[in-house]
Amino acid sequence: MAKSPEEEHPVKAFGWAARDHSGHLSPFNFSRRETGEEDVRFKVLYCGICHSDLHSIKNEWGNAAYPMVPGHEIVGVVTEVGSKVEKFKVGDKVGVGCLVGACHSCESCSDDLENYCSKLILTYNMPYHDGTRTYGGYSDTMVAPERYVVRIPDNMPLAAGAPLLCAGITVYSPLKYFGFTQPGMHIGIVGLGGLGHVAVKFAKAFGVKVTLISTSLSKKKEAIEHLGADSFVVSHDPEQMQAAMGTMDGILDTVSATHPLLPLLGLLKNNGKLILLGVPEKPLELPAFSLIMGRKTVAGSGIGGMKETQEMLDFAAKHNVTADIEVVPMDYVNTAMERLAKADVRYRFVIDIGNSLSATKP
Amino acid sequence: MAKSPEEEHPVKAFGWAARDHSGHLSPFNFSRRETGEEDVRFKVLYCGICHSDLHSIKNEWGNAAYPMVPGHEIVGVVTEVGSKVEKFKVGDKVGVGCLVGACHSCESCSDDLENYCSKLILTYNMPYHDGTRTYGGYSDTMVAPERYVVRIPDNMPLAAGAPLLCAGITVYSPLKYFGFTQPGMHIGIVGLGGLGHVAVKFAKAFGVKVTLISTSLSKKKEAIEHLGADSFVVSHDPEQMQAAMGTMDGILDTVSATHPLLPLLGLLKNNGKLILLGVPEKPLELPAFSLIMGRKTVAGSGIGGMKETQEMLDFAAKHNVTADIEVVPMDYVNTAMERLAKADVRYRFVIDIGNSLSATKP
Repeated sequence: MAKSPEEEHPVKAFGWAARDHSGHLSPFNFSRRETGEEDVRFKVLYCGICHSDLHSIKNEWGNAAYPMVPGHEIVGVVTEVGSKVEKFKVGDKVGVGCLVGACHSCESCSDDLENYCSKLILTYNMPYHDGTRTYGGYSDTMVAPERYVVRIPDNMPLAAGAPLLCAGITVYSPLKYFGFTQPGMHIGIVGLGGLGHVAVKFAKAFGVKVTLISTSLSKKKEAIEHLGADSFVVSHDPEQMQAAMGTMDGILDTVSATHPLLPLLGLLKNNGKLILLGVPEKPLELPAFSLIMGRKTVAGSGIGGMKETQEMLDFAAKHNVTADIEVVPMDYVNTAMERLAKADVRYRFVIDIGNSLSATKP
Repeated sequence: MAKSPEEEHPVKAFGWAARDHSGHLSPFNFSRRETGEEDVRFKVLYCGICHSDLHSIKNEWGNAAYPMVPGHEIVGVVTEVGSKVEKFKVGDKVGVGCLVGACHSCESCSDDLENYCSKLILTYNMPYHDGTRTYGGYSDTMVAPERYVVRIPDNMPLAAGAPLLCAGITVYSPLKYFGFTQPGMHIGIVGLGGLGHVAVKFAKAFGVKVTLISTSLSKKKEAIEHLGADSFVVSHDPEQMQAAMGTMDGILDTVSATHPLLPLLGLLKNNGKLILLGVPEKPLELPAFSLIMGRKTVAGSGIGGMKETQEMLDFAAKHNVTADIEVVPMDYVNTAMERLAKADVRYRFVIDIGNSLSATKP
């Protein structure tokens, strides 16, 4: 019989876990492996709450295994390194994002695109190489292979940097890959949430013109005055949409709800590209004619590889890009999830693991 | 009151036209403009029957104006050129494809992509600059601006070359633009009809590996032995589709019927591209997840610009690419349309205008 989560590994760990599809999180004793020769172990200080944590704990994607410790925007300080670790030493500020493993032999892995490896191992709710489940960052300690650990730049605040490990790389990677970084370009960002607000900041850091596309006029002032967007379009206002027709080189679509693509395709110039980052539950409607008339593209992009994640952090540090966050204590997490479900956060909750987790031990 | 088609221009013309949405074609007297200073006039010898002719004459796209003379795969011999025409002289073998005009001032036109100009003028069933309707190639004479006339290479048979003016450029342009021409690549072609069979020939001429994807096993022998495809996959055979999963760099999808994209996206490698060339009546279902997992693309492509159309013809002549055709006389056209609707043609009907049209004059 398989060992219990508390006994399967030698190193004690404590975190908060969901036990069933209610998604309710509560204190949880488990364990982590010893520090392998290629591993980096670190004390977790902060962990962002990603919208996918909410999907996962409620089993909305149908692949949940309980107990589940979520969290994949994890930052902290190194406490131990394996004998073959070269890039990190005790005391370094580091982070782990969505990935902790992949096959390392396929074309994607060879191209530093572990995120597209068919055998990728996510940071939580996945079987690891040794057969045990992976547990995420709502916990006191973390251990991961050096390849999956990134350095947090010295001048980056840890809490506000944490969400970059998922939200940041998810928007940075397509901006780069699809060529949306050339001066003079006009890029649309659909949705002003955890991803969208960081997308505006990165796009502005690349020097392109940014238009925020949102269902809600109430976000206009914030988008322009605080985040630095150049303009704002209310997506259900036909006049505003008409005025913006055919003006954009690319669009990052961060919306996870089912929504029409046709109006967004209309905003693109010929040869323009609409990049989907969110995963609606149902298939979207794709009108072929609107792609053909103008040689337009709809593509997808999912997080990024580890090399690019480090590049993204270094770029963010240089350009002072961080997430706008609300830091909350560990025992606030269930309330935070309720608020997140209502989009009641600007723009990312980050759990202050270092200062509040241990007090919740039973 | 507007003049009749027979009286609105000074040059008499004769062709076959549809009069209503029955799509039935019959002899039709009309007229064409005098040869303008930038115009090339030619005697039509052959005209291909494109599937879009069938859609158009039956008003299946809802934009038909009658009487309609279809035909946009038109070849013939120059009979007169305007004073400013530089590239053509009387006696030259020439062709006109889908386009006879555009704005010539937008970015697309500047980039030799008249096909993506928002003011493009199609060869038939469109208002021309002078306000009269355009009439296509099921007719004895044609006149078009030099920019929209291409040279048929000397060694290209006129009848079998005609379909290249639409079907040929429609598949050649995306093969080039989306980078599907690099040796070692593996390209899928969905559908073995007018477009598909030419796509196989062009892709093989570029030296890539070609897999034909079809609903019908009966086409396998033909695809491989006659057209030169390297392999064949029956799209509704789960085992064959599974075996081909993740193997293709790109796919040209020539199917106009509504069909699922998910299985086709599964055939693509990471970063692979599915290019839609057909226009199904209803929107297709696009599962965002399958794009995101592998950074895949769905894009559209529509015919090609005039410069690229000439390039395509020259490439085709060099590599002996022509369409497989069934030459039919003018008075067979209604039967041909009925057979086309049942996909009963390998693979393109071409009307022998030069030898059979005049006999149908009332």
